[in-house]
Amino acid sequence: MTFRQSPTRWALADGRELLFFTLPGHDCEPVPDRRSLPQRCAAQSELRFDRTTGQWVIIAALRQDRTYMPPADRCPLCPGPSGLTSEIPAADYDVVAFENRFASLTEAGGSAFQLPDPADADFVSAPSHGRCEVICFSSDHTGSFAGLDFRQARLVVEAWRHRTAELSATPGIEQVFCFENRGAEIGVTLTHPHGQIYGYPYLTPRTEQMLQAARAHRTRTGTNLFADVLAHEVRDGARIVARTELFTAFVPFAARWPVEVHIYPNRFAHNLLDLDGAELDEFTRVYSDILQRLDRLYPTPLPYMAALHQYADTDAQREGYFHVEVMSTRRSATKLKYLASSESAMDAFINDVRPEAIAEMVRTA
Amino acid sequence: MTFRQSPTRWALADGRELLFFTLPGHDCEPVPDRRSLPQRCAAQSELRFDRTTGQWVIIAALRQDRTYMPPADRCPLCPGPSGLTSEIPAADYDVVAFENRFASLTEAGGSAFQLPDPADADFVSAPSHGRCEVICFSSDHTGSFAGLDFRQARLVVEAWRHRTAELSATPGIEQVFCFENRGAEIGVTLTHPHGQIYGYPYLTPRTEQMLQAARAHRTRTGTNLFADVLAHEVRDGARIVARTELFTAFVPFAARWPVEVHIYPNRFAHNLLDLDGAELDEFTRVYSDILQRLDRLYPTPLPYMAALHQYADTDAQREGYFHVEVMSTRRSATKLKYLASSESAMDAFINDVRPEAIAEMVRTA
Repeated sequence: MTFRQSPTRWALADGRELLFFTLPGHDCEPVPDRRSLPQRCAAQSELRFDRTTGQWVIIAALRQDRTYMPPADRCPLCPGPSGLTSEIPAADYDVVAFENRFASLTEAGGSAFQLPDPADADFVSAPSHGRCEVICFSSDHTGSFAGLDFRQARLVVEAWRHRTAELSATPGIEQVFCFENRGAEIGVTLTHPHGQIYGYPYLTPRTEQMLQAARAHRTRTGTNLFADVLAHEVRDGARIVARTELFTAFVPFAARWPVEVHIYPNRFAHNLLDLDGAELDEFTRVYSDILQRLDRLYPTPLPYMAALHQYADTDAQREGYFHVEVMSTRRSATKLKYLASSESAMDAFINDVRPEAIAEMVRTA
Repeated sequence: MTFRQSPTRWALADGRELLFFTLPGHDCEPVPDRRSLPQRCAAQSELRFDRTTGQWVIIAALRQDRTYMPPADRCPLCPGPSGLTSEIPAADYDVVAFENRFASLTEAGGSAFQLPDPADADFVSAPSHGRCEVICFSSDHTGSFAGLDFRQARLVVEAWRHRTAELSATPGIEQVFCFENRGAEIGVTLTHPHGQIYGYPYLTPRTEQMLQAARAHRTRTGTNLFADVLAHEVRDGARIVARTELFTAFVPFAARWPVEVHIYPNRFAHNLLDLDGAELDEFTRVYSDILQRLDRLYPTPLPYMAALHQYADTDAQREGYFHVEVMSTRRSATKLKYLASSESAMDAFINDVRPEAIAEMVRTA
């Protein structure tokens, strides 16, 4: 499936950027955003360096006031033909991405931005440069990614590619993270099907850690860590959930979450931009298939987090292998796993579900 | 305050160990545990190595059946004078510690145990050697640590010391972690005031990370990282919550949680065993005071995690500075913070509350 190259760009009342991605044959007809919005204020948000862990933390007091479970007729992600009721001033749309009104990272690209050296002072902080976007998967208020038809899901993948390319090229953005939080159980405050895209000004701690493991593996074995993990999982077979000519989905051997499925392209790629047309189509099918299976595991749809691990072809990120990790805290039909002290204070994960057992459940769902 | 040196040891029906810690002048009179309990089975629990992060994960399928919110008259942590209704077969007790019936780590000390080298195979796993204990803070079913009188709280501290000393000396245990999870909001399944003690067979990932940061700091500056952080916080003052001659409590500059308070002894110590009598008494007072303040922040008691960071005087852990981290996911009177994709998938924390603001709230609570 091929797409028109450029989305339509629009500006919201407070200057935030909105992009319309349209299916072949569709037009988009935005109207002016006539809301009276306060000007954005980034001053309340900053990065602070935690010396005891060597990690940056985002302090974003602004977000305390964000929209919380509005009634369906006031959903800010539904189309707003009047330009007065919604974040998307248009009679309809296919897929949109726009800057989050309650962003914890802002103003990337405005000027050359470099993080300060943590050794420079006792307390090191920096403006929270970066980008936080919302991506609406459909104009239909109900439903979910798993329920999108192929063309619609493929358009979301195309929008992810566009945002990845553009934000990766933005000065000051080090990592682009496309993700979806789904379900009130994990704190989602808007039910309209949507995901988010973060452009961080640093490599996130987990990515840094995985890349470090991969570099050590390369030094030791001469091979790519993730490619080897994929090959081992395929050879073992016990945790494979789905496998096609181009993609493989499996529950990892040392899964941290009661439900956890990883999706890898069979061919090494850094990110969605490296995939060819056939791979993008297949990725769309396999990803949708996995989400549909996960929703059939229990009587109610699964609350989940879906994380696209994408990497740039830079020295630091070269060993990174594009994959998606889908995780859920649901450990049975009625119970959730909580990240309590062992996980939250010590990062020591305890998984109550055997990876082989959940793989069998997803395989047969 | 001084204590009788040795707790009374008892055995539960399935062979698990139970220890009674008693206040001066009190006796403990355990009765036989007459319950018909299944023999413990460790076979369902194992450690698995995650190559992509370089971390061990505990897979503990056994825990799925653990006791979940029993009615008050069937609380397994209340005294059980008949030996038929409780984990503690006795008419009363002051403080007890016993092996968790639904342990994710077991059988430490039975034989010399060494973790396998992760480079040895494609999939590396090991028996989940270690220890999981429950510690009951009081025989009173209601209440909390914050509500204990000084003598009772000091006895809990003494029990922590005893368990730290004994488990640290147990072959195969690398790290002893005393902690409390409090509140249904973070998944606590028993309301009787209690904490837990884990003896991990490895250094937990966060501890490893903090020690790595501390070693790098030592190399660069010749000083201890945590001592420097404490000195900087004291000098700055904006986030200090309480300070006495012997202890300091503060909200860290780069707090990851909406409520987060760290408590440090003013003098360097690796763990509770390094503290003298006056310091132990003062720690008890300051810790209780902080928990009381936290419960006054909002109309209802705060759900929290309290983590005792203790270290051994070994090459790997020498830079570790004993401290307690108390954290809560509550970000307002009615809202909780959820660890969604940014935190859970990328370890990139976003804190909605300014550390200076929460410090002021705790200071004046």
